[in-house]
Amino acid sequence: MENLRIGILGYGNLGRGVELAIGQNSDLELAGIFTRRDPAVIHPLTDNAKVYNVKEALNHKEEIDVMILCGGSSTDLMSQSPAFASHFNIVDSFDTHARISEHFNSVNNSALETNHCAVISAGWDPGLFSINRIFAESVLPVGNSYTFWGKGVSQGHSDALRRIEGVSNAIQYTLPIESAIEEVRNGTHPIYTAREMHTRECFVSLKPGANQDKVYSEIVNMPNYFSDYNTTVHFVSDQELTENHSGMPHGGFVQRSGTTGVNQETNHIYEFSLKLDSNPEFTSSVLVCYARAVHRLFSEGIYGAKTVLEIPPAYLSAQPIERLRAELL
Amino acid sequence: MENLRIGILGYGNLGRGVELAIGQNSDLELAGIFTRRDPAVIHPLTDNAKVYNVKEALNHKEEIDVMILCGGSSTDLMSQSPAFASHFNIVDSFDTHARISEHFNSVNNSALETNHCAVISAGWDPGLFSINRIFAESVLPVGNSYTFWGKGVSQGHSDALRRIEGVSNAIQYTLPIESAIEEVRNGTHPIYTAREMHTRECFVSLKPGANQDKVYSEIVNMPNYFSDYNTTVHFVSDQELTENHSGMPHGGFVQRSGTTGVNQETNHIYEFSLKLDSNPEFTSSVLVCYARAVHRLFSEGIYGAKTVLEIPPAYLSAQPIERLRAELL
Repeated sequence: MENLRIGILGYGNLGRGVELAIGQNSDLELAGIFTRRDPAVIHPLTDNAKVYNVKEALNHKEEIDVMILCGGSSTDLMSQSPAFASHFNIVDSFDTHARISEHFNSVNNSALETNHCAVISAGWDPGLFSINRIFAESVLPVGNSYTFWGKGVSQGHSDALRRIEGVSNAIQYTLPIESAIEEVRNGTHPIYTAREMHTRECFVSLKPGANQDKVYSEIVNMPNYFSDYNTTVHFVSDQELTENHSGMPHGGFVQRSGTTGVNQETNHIYEFSLKLDSNPEFTSSVLVCYARAVHRLFSEGIYGAKTVLEIPPAYLSAQPIERLRAELL
Repeated sequence: MENLRIGILGYGNLGRGVELAIGQNSDLELAGIFTRRDPAVIHPLTDNAKVYNVKEALNHKEEIDVMILCGGSSTDLMSQSPAFASHFNIVDSFDTHARISEHFNSVNNSALETNHCAVISAGWDPGLFSINRIFAESVLPVGNSYTFWGKGVSQGHSDALRRIEGVSNAIQYTLPIESAIEEVRNGTHPIYTAREMHTRECFVSLKPGANQDKVYSEIVNMPNYFSDYNTTVHFVSDQELTENHSGMPHGGFVQRSGTTGVNQETNHIYEFSLKLDSNPEFTSSVLVCYARAVHRLFSEGIYGAKTVLEIPPAYLSAQPIERLRAELL
């Protein structure tokens, strides 16, 4: 069988992650990297990788089975995904939960008009976490669901810190409260406030002359972002931020505690968790699996947009179904 | 929308579990219970439930959308599933891993010949565990996979104990070694022997005059079953076995530790776990979700046998896909 030819659109952390993930899968090959920057300034990790300006993408349609869109949800994907779905089979990691239906509809329309297939919102949340929420709530309809995130960097919260007057640079970690996770495992079906599930830890460097007490107070009292949480603030140097806080770990827990039995007397705990040393590298690893799935759907004549909820687990695997049934079932 | 009408074939622990699970799902209704016993001796948990002898099943074909087969893998399903798939859409929980391909083929043939749809080997292992093995190995192709079971009753090992001369009754619990699970979480990619992953704990009552030392020695040295594990044996009374060891807890952990990055320097831990107070009640809860899925496939004109690996997660849910996309993705 011929390799599946993958195009990468956008060469940031996610694009590089996709490039690395392609290298781990012998049925996939890198067809080209497309960037808004000058291709000459891009230095791919793969020997002999082809780099093109994004404006040339349509000239390479015939060389690409699936284009993986590696842009950001807030700035790129709402316009890029529908545009590219008119010419390519695509996968994106659109993660603005509130706008997924809107994004789905616009990608679906473009893909259907031109007989392409698209998977939107692939990754881990939305993605593997969503799948586990569906499994857990379907199998245990009577119960309580919990999602804990972290330890991980929240880009939105880090950005909010950087907007405070006097702040030079900042990183915010979201931490799940271990004792809360443990309490769910005990089957007591706890009800939590936001403060009882997560804490927030900030590492902040200040500009010369900034008022540390004022910055501290602005952080811990910031509505929506910090005021509902127990927040710790560490004031550190710019250098320490760069040296010790450049990683992008993330992860979390999806839990459901449910009951069955004549009087709901039987407890069951369903739990899924990820502990990721690199959020973008793991997300990219999920994206390439859905590239495989989207190509398979396309090959079956299935067009339009899909989410991870609509794709059979076996479609993510490079192994033939007969082997999966015999060996992994 | 009309309720989905479910038939239950076999009214043991699993059949009763399915009956309870139907009661938790407002889109499902119990159409009838089919038993090999005299229907008069069956006392269903549901008011006004209809109980029939299994020989009457074909007379009720038109009243049943999906028949859930609740017999055992070793004695019933290899003949029952293909036979019933000729007349009904079916779901079974066939769990003899080594014979799944054979079973799949025979059910697939009957279902295809008569335009029915069948899901085989639904439950948690095979079932949800299998799905997680596929996800984990697809997303993290470079890594190590681990399955831990327990704490739970192993029927096969309990039966092996009961066959020993002098044993009156016995129960065997399989226990995962917590420190081994923890070590996987540390990302060290350990390689384990059987003894390093699980211990076995036996509760055994003796017949009058039995030689306790001889029974002990036979247990701990029994090849395949116990000799490769650290095994604890507690000699107890028949009464204690009945009073304290009649529950059917089970569960376990599917873990994968994988790496990404230019030099495989980035670690990721994928973990799925279940802690079930009743193995049959949880398995039944999974079976009714796949009954929903099998009926949906059938309604789409998709016939033949399927496994859980081939079914989109959304098909397990009673919620419409638009709502799942908007709220759970």
